[in-house]
Amino acid sequence: MKSFRKELMIQLPSRRGLVNITGKVDQALKQSGIREGLILVNAMDPTSSIFVSDDESGLHQDFETWLEQLAPEKPYEQYCHNGRCNNADAYLKRQLMGREAVIAITDGYLDLQRWEQIFYFEFDGMKEKHVLIKVIGE
Amino acid sequence: MKSFRKELMIQLPSRRGLVNITGKVDQALKQSGIREGLILVNAMDPTSSIFVSDDESGLHQDFETWLEQLAPEKPYEQYCHNGRCNNADAYLKRQLMGREAVIAITDGYLDLQRWEQIFYFEFDGMKEKHVLIKVIGE
Amino acid sequence: MKSFRKELMIQLPSRRGLVNITGKVDQALKQSGIREGLILVNAMDPTSSIFVSDDESGLHQDFETWLEQLAPEKPYEQYCHNGRCNNADAYLKRQLMGREAVIAITDGYLDLQRWEQIFYFEFDGMKEKHVLIKVIGE
Repeated sequence: MKSFRKELMIQLPSRRGLVNITGKVDQALKQSGIREGLILVNAMDPTSSIFVSDDESGLHQDFETWLEQLAPEKPYEQYCHNGRCNNADAYLKRQLMGREAVIAITDGYLDLQRWEQIFYFEFDGMKEKHVLIKVIGE
Repeated sequence: MKSFRKELMIQLPSRRGLVNITGKVDQALKQSGIREGLILVNAMDPTSSIFVSDDESGLHQDFETWLEQLAPEKPYEQYCHNGRCNNADAYLKRQLMGREAVIAITDGYLDLQRWEQIFYFEFDGMKEKHVLIKVIGE
Repeated sequence: MKSFRKELMIQLPSRRGLVNITGKVDQALKQSGIREGLILVNAMDPTSSIFVSDDESGLHQDFETWLEQLAPEKPYEQYCHNGRCNNADAYLKRQLMGREAVIAITDGYLDLQRWEQIFYFEFDGMKEKHVLIKVIGE
């Protein structure tokens, strides 16, 4: 069994935002040399998410609106966690979008359907964040 | 390390619906010959979900009602994604129910509690969809 | 490839509650002797969750409040599943917090960011529940 590890660094200029990281995950997979196995992609911070969906800007706007409805940023005082910080909503939004994606590796490729892409969703940006890519297999 | 891949095809006659796929996942596991490892089961489309829960029809009705409350199908115009299509709610519902289940394989069996079953949840049906089963181990 | 399996037993004195199980997962990892691979930690019951977040009591109170808003326990009669039982909300809350965490094992350690911890979230307590830890790798 082989294993491979890589970290991506992401720093967004805004509180929230979405980044398509499919190309970088694919690059890590190629570097690993692994052709059959599993790849784990996870946010290394509890205020951001990794998820698999379509790359369509209207959809991404719908996600943003929906997350703000279900876990609004403001008023900050509604959350116990907010005091020295104001990011409680980011932890809730992250639960809705998830921490990780586990994707099959088949014949050296990410085993996704044609239009599926891997996204990083930032909910508490303007600081350095990390994404972990771990591949195991042969 | 051994690996095994199988795709299930699912086509529902309705927009939404729930299918118990435990038997088919178990069958794939038997075909793989793998006795210790992990099995990944994931929807191959961002408008459907795989999740683990109980097989109780009242509960399944509660999921349907709850998902419609948190991510309503209509009015279609409330979503930016809807224009040529009308399935934006399906992407949101899928986030609540999840993309994938990773399940331990122990002694050749799906390592689930007695009553747990693996479900496919369709949110944008009446077309051909796929589920990926990937097993790695020995 | 090596594999290792361990079950944790958890019984809370209340309906809902949060337990930091990072130490126990770490102990299982050490017992496994595996230094590179993946560890799966999952609730063995569809009314409880495993998730990765920060160990901050204000945040945990925010999770509790938020879950009660999105999937309220009462009135019990609002759910079809409730009849002989009254735990339908527990199944919904579990979907928001997730079933499992898959974590990379690197150099013998849980490959988490410094402050991240692994939590068990109980939504239907006062009975014996189990958590499965499965490690695969080398």
